[in-house]
Amino acid sequence: MPGRNALFIPGPTNVPERVRQALNIPMEDQRAPDFPDFVRPLLADLKRVFRTESGEVLVFPGSGTAGWEAALTNTLSPGDRVLAARFGVFSDLWVQMCERLGFQVEAVDRPWGTGVPVELFAERLAADKGHSIKAVLVTHNETATGVTSDVAAVRRALDAAGHPALLMVDGVSSIGSLEFRMDDWGVDLAVAGSQKGFMLPTGLAIVGVSRRALEQIGTSRRCYLDFAAMARSVTTGHFPYTPATTLLRGLRAAVDLLLEEGLDEVANRHYRLGEAVRRAVAGWGFRLCAQAPKWHSDTVSAVVLPEGFDSTAFARHAYENFNLSFGLGLAKVAGRVFRIGHLGDLNEWMVLSALAGAELALADFGVPVELGSGVAAAQRWLLEQRAALAAAAE
Amino acid sequence: MPGRNALFIPGPTNVPERVRQALNIPMEDQRAPDFPDFVRPLLADLKRVFRTESGEVLVFPGSGTAGWEAALTNTLSPGDRVLAARFGVFSDLWVQMCERLGFQVEAVDRPWGTGVPVELFAERLAADKGHSIKAVLVTHNETATGVTSDVAAVRRALDAAGHPALLMVDGVSSIGSLEFRMDDWGVDLAVAGSQKGFMLPTGLAIVGVSRRALEQIGTSRRCYLDFAAMARSVTTGHFPYTPATTLLRGLRAAVDLLLEEGLDEVANRHYRLGEAVRRAVAGWGFRLCAQAPKWHSDTVSAVVLPEGFDSTAFARHAYENFNLSFGLGLAKVAGRVFRIGHLGDLNEWMVLSALAGAELALADFGVPVELGSGVAAAQRWLLEQRAALAAAAE
Amino acid sequence: MPGRNALFIPGPTNVPERVRQALNIPMEDQRAPDFPDFVRPLLADLKRVFRTESGEVLVFPGSGTAGWEAALTNTLSPGDRVLAARFGVFSDLWVQMCERLGFQVEAVDRPWGTGVPVELFAERLAADKGHSIKAVLVTHNETATGVTSDVAAVRRALDAAGHPALLMVDGVSSIGSLEFRMDDWGVDLAVAGSQKGFMLPTGLAIVGVSRRALEQIGTSRRCYLDFAAMARSVTTGHFPYTPATTLLRGLRAAVDLLLEEGLDEVANRHYRLGEAVRRAVAGWGFRLCAQAPKWHSDTVSAVVLPEGFDSTAFARHAYENFNLSFGLGLAKVAGRVFRIGHLGDLNEWMVLSALAGAELALADFGVPVELGSGVAAAQRWLLEQRAALAAAAE
Amino acid sequence: MPGRNALFIPGPTNVPERVRQALNIPMEDQRAPDFPDFVRPLLADLKRVFRTESGEVLVFPGSGTAGWEAALTNTLSPGDRVLAARFGVFSDLWVQMCERLGFQVEAVDRPWGTGVPVELFAERLAADKGHSIKAVLVTHNETATGVTSDVAAVRRALDAAGHPALLMVDGVSSIGSLEFRMDDWGVDLAVAGSQKGFMLPTGLAIVGVSRRALEQIGTSRRCYLDFAAMARSVTTGHFPYTPATTLLRGLRAAVDLLLEEGLDEVANRHYRLGEAVRRAVAGWGFRLCAQAPKWHSDTVSAVVLPEGFDSTAFARHAYENFNLSFGLGLAKVAGRVFRIGHLGDLNEWMVLSALAGAELALADFGVPVELGSGVAAAQRWLLEQRAALAAAAE
Repeated sequence: MPGRNALFIPGPTNVPERVRQALNIPMEDQRAPDFPDFVRPLLADLKRVFRTESGEVLVFPGSGTAGWEAALTNTLSPGDRVLAARFGVFSDLWVQMCERLGFQVEAVDRPWGTGVPVELFAERLAADKGHSIKAVLVTHNETATGVTSDVAAVRRALDAAGHPALLMVDGVSSIGSLEFRMDDWGVDLAVAGSQKGFMLPTGLAIVGVSRRALEQIGTSRRCYLDFAAMARSVTTGHFPYTPATTLLRGLRAAVDLLLEEGLDEVANRHYRLGEAVRRAVAGWGFRLCAQAPKWHSDTVSAVVLPEGFDSTAFARHAYENFNLSFGLGLAKVAGRVFRIGHLGDLNEWMVLSALAGAELALADFGVPVELGSGVAAAQRWLLEQRAALAAAAE
Repeated sequence: MPGRNALFIPGPTNVPERVRQALNIPMEDQRAPDFPDFVRPLLADLKRVFRTESGEVLVFPGSGTAGWEAALTNTLSPGDRVLAARFGVFSDLWVQMCERLGFQVEAVDRPWGTGVPVELFAERLAADKGHSIKAVLVTHNETATGVTSDVAAVRRALDAAGHPALLMVDGVSSIGSLEFRMDDWGVDLAVAGSQKGFMLPTGLAIVGVSRRALEQIGTSRRCYLDFAAMARSVTTGHFPYTPATTLLRGLRAAVDLLLEEGLDEVANRHYRLGEAVRRAVAGWGFRLCAQAPKWHSDTVSAVVLPEGFDSTAFARHAYENFNLSFGLGLAKVAGRVFRIGHLGDLNEWMVLSALAGAELALADFGVPVELGSGVAAAQRWLLEQRAALAAAAE
Repeated sequence: MPGRNALFIPGPTNVPERVRQALNIPMEDQRAPDFPDFVRPLLADLKRVFRTESGEVLVFPGSGTAGWEAALTNTLSPGDRVLAARFGVFSDLWVQMCERLGFQVEAVDRPWGTGVPVELFAERLAADKGHSIKAVLVTHNETATGVTSDVAAVRRALDAAGHPALLMVDGVSSIGSLEFRMDDWGVDLAVAGSQKGFMLPTGLAIVGVSRRALEQIGTSRRCYLDFAAMARSVTTGHFPYTPATTLLRGLRAAVDLLLEEGLDEVANRHYRLGEAVRRAVAGWGFRLCAQAPKWHSDTVSAVVLPEGFDSTAFARHAYENFNLSFGLGLAKVAGRVFRIGHLGDLNEWMVLSALAGAELALADFGVPVELGSGVAAAQRWLLEQRAALAAAAE
Repeated sequence: MPGRNALFIPGPTNVPERVRQALNIPMEDQRAPDFPDFVRPLLADLKRVFRTESGEVLVFPGSGTAGWEAALTNTLSPGDRVLAARFGVFSDLWVQMCERLGFQVEAVDRPWGTGVPVELFAERLAADKGHSIKAVLVTHNETATGVTSDVAAVRRALDAAGHPALLMVDGVSSIGSLEFRMDDWGVDLAVAGSQKGFMLPTGLAIVGVSRRALEQIGTSRRCYLDFAAMARSVTTGHFPYTPATTLLRGLRAAVDLLLEEGLDEVANRHYRLGEAVRRAVAGWGFRLCAQAPKWHSDTVSAVVLPEGFDSTAFARHAYENFNLSFGLGLAKVAGRVFRIGHLGDLNEWMVLSALAGAELALADFGVPVELGSGVAAAQRWLLEQRAALAAAAE
């Protein structure tokens, strides 16, 4: 099929050209004398992306799922209680992982389209006078439903209860895109993956670990994903086993891009572009899976198709006929939503291309949608934003 | 600036991934014993793209401008008369080249936005009983104004007049995209460049030469661009000087893509996408530089901005604020038109992205344009086309 | 520093150009409808590389170390006894991993430079009438010392004892390079990594699992590295979490290269090139860490420097002055050996370049070595081999 | 065939990784507002590589042959006399070009293996009281025979005779590798190509033009290769026709590499590596085509095979059996010499790999050569050089 594929899934995201260039390299010796001179500043700059000074950021060859497991198995012991909420595939999978790894999960079920129930968490924590809860799990951005939760509020709940549980955050589809403040929010474990906000191919689990979490060593069995061994890389610049050097070189370029743009502007840009998508969805007369504005995710929107249309068939139609890749609805919302990823190396025209393409594919699939309606709504918003920014700059 | 650049200039065009992979190679020995096994089938397949069986296609390291010069200097002698028309920058530049190379140009000036005046050419040819005109120059697709001319009609005019002049065609922005039939149309010299329909970086002048043109050797001085030396590559698979091997490897991939899609479908696709752009322009209420449908180019549209707007400033605005690259207006139409290139490795969503981006940039620049109007008009057309194709397939 | 780096470490190995081209791609949707059409044949062809028909090959994002852990935790239960031998860093690390994961290791210590003690293993297995040993661990190729062990002999010992223990093989630096016959040798778990014989960047743990091992499910806790979830990819073509699509595309190219060359010829080539290195070492008057020819590894040679020379300093000297990367001596042999990797995408001149470069660097470092002696010895061997092959072909 | 190709032809040369990364880019708009910000400093830095302050360096899409033609046709008029010498294929081809372009060539034939006959040139110039000679052509480095000529001496001869002829230098295989001083040597036209010392793919003719040459405009017909049009790029940053942007981006990286290493060190490195090749040739007991040390080229060595051996068959043998690419003997020395290119992105081990590979291939081809003899001789020289450099640094 002629022409590029339009990749608007919520990860892997589009790789920027500078990163792509950085990836086009031969292999190198990870034990070379000057390799640490490359590794150490990279790990230090990753701390800036996670906004932590006191913690460390560890990089494992693996996917975000490996990062989840590393966070759990390094700090908890079998039988430990964790508090979590389930409101989408990924928050659910993390709970399942906890169970498989032998933890007792106090899992709160919430409607898909909502996020972490902070008040309910606050109650549970306050009630847990014996501090039997060892960790609170927060899916910062539920990729399946396009819902962002309030991590800082969970920290406040912990503090209000004087509760020592570790705060573990799945930031796979938020870190590097949305506002994320590890130190300010008192996050103990922050899990990211290379293929979302870091704009790289899949293959790195990037885990922020607070000082406290580094010291709170659980008895869960682990070896590959062990923090203690990996944490030595921060000072030695060498890894406990062969690192994915190609991805690390790409990560250097990606971190440079993020820091050059500035993390605040990165988050602002994601807000502007995310809202543009939401305006388009409203323009089409559709609703989001996210049930209220406070849950709106700036990295992914799960769009509910009108009754009678199968979103899985639609995504396939868009792919096969128009070379457009949107995310499928998963599990409970399979067949009902399709997802537009809007994170990473993205700008206005790219988002408009997703919307214009989606409109075309929707109409061709038979979904009643006014042509141009979503694009125009998004354009209007983007123009307003530019005007506001220009006014603010004066 | 985050995000990709949107490249919608009328060349260089977007390089398809398969071609980009093919270009990512080390250097090789152009005198290797197996190098001819690569070159000969490539040159043979290029003949299929030019749709010539009796002629040859020669590949020079250089740009399309070198191809123009090769066509002229190999077949003509200083003082020879050529018949040409000027209706845009590129047709004009070719005439200027003729003059600088010492030919007498009978140059017909036509309004920019029109194309080759076939009737007038027919008259001149008929009147030239002594056959003093040695060549007729046809700019198949005037890239500056988005005008396609009727090459076959010029051939008919030549035949009607029984005139032996060579038919020289500038196909730089047509060959590999628009319908082009070298043998059927009796084209003697057909000039293409690597960076348009061939979807490669700039650097190859690709010249189709009829049997007759190969034999009609002029006395113009030339060496680098000599046909006789280069024509030996067709049989030997070796070149008279170091070839651009990287581009040749990329050309192999590009020719494969064209032949796999099929040249008819390539032209049909360009028609569908080109018309989508024209519908959008009409949707915005703008007009094209091309003065009538028969001149409409399916590879580039020169869009006239409403009075009072400087198209050069607009293109700069689109580039600097939105990372959108459109073609400038050149020479006579500088400041008045901007150009949307719609050729090469392109599909529906890519064209819509150009239109959605242009709409946004136009509005932001202050040009009154109804948001969504162009996108919707293009989408409507594309949907109609798909419906028609589906109906035809039943 | 001008010029290429010469990478002669025992992994990562040099990436062939075809693989490098395959890696230079944009991201793609791992849930695309046609993605399984790519995955399923790839996994099927991996079985051919492992030479298994009845087993499966599973691919995890991770390093070889993750493969070790996957092999252990999926099939064993905490407290299970395993039989292993320690004779180098990597065999030792695997034993350490067993201990950390809660298995009882019956670890036989053997001199570095020797390999798996088959007779001793046979005795232990025969003595284990109660079949308390659940797995036998074999490091097929100890990368630290350049020692290859006899996997088939361990299988024979198991069979002779009628012992049902699983046969687990670390094939990280052997599979895809040395002869490896999973079915014939009755290997239950075969661990490989992408960055050695598969000639890819680091990032994939590739694990062959016999039918029996797939069914023998241990109670060790695991989630990321779970076989059951991953094994579904063989039939569905989809993965339990985001796969490293870039590396999978590269793996496709690498597997093609291996199968096109033929696994027997791959192994033969590694023998010829490995022996060339050994001849050079003998030519220099040095000895190998491997204590007898039966232990000689065809993928890596650990070369003992003469008394008084620090091999770590030598490797640094070669790197910093000559852009030559050789492997360091590790742990017990640190400072005493340096390692020449000779596996993957390698041919005669590349091996000679390692040897000629090593000679130069050794002499420059002050090690007494006759210039040309190693190169000549290697050349002589290679010429003999060619002559023998030519004679055999007649 | 497994393993890399060893490219030791005298161009194209090996592309450094930084350049290769720079080439792996999408197309861009050559009329973008910020494009001149890229072009102007690049052209300025090229002047530093040519070591000219008063002249300009112009870059044409084309090969070195185009550069020759540009030098001639821009400054000379048909019928003009030029003084040249023929002592190899490339000096001969340049003379042939002169003839085809209508100049009167006073061509001195010299034995192949010698270079520009300065004394004879001096005589001719002194005798040409009427200054009918308009240009003196010097092939700085005759790539066919591995002969470097003394450009400065020709300048002295011109000055001694008070002769105003232009000094035209073919520096295709010297500039960027050997010492080249355009201003100091009073070179008026200096022709280079991208695929030699500039370590890029073929595709750019890079021509240094003195102030005087820019002003001395001949009446030869030309258009594509016109200096006047191209010279405007120096100030405007825009080109008269579509430039090869990819190569220009690569050129930026290549120029950076040259200037970072320092041109003196670049030349010294080529001397050290070139002499290493010559020592190896002597070690084998062979002789060079270059007849005396003063002609020795530091970028290419043409090696004479012993009587009875066909060098063309040898080069094919090396390529087909060992993946080694050496240059063929051309024209008069076809079948008698093979050429080792030793220019561009090269270091010690790479040169040794060429020599070790050549030794192997020679022996396998049946040429009597003592194994290791050439490699050892080269190593010895390289070690001496390092010792001398170290002593000098103290």
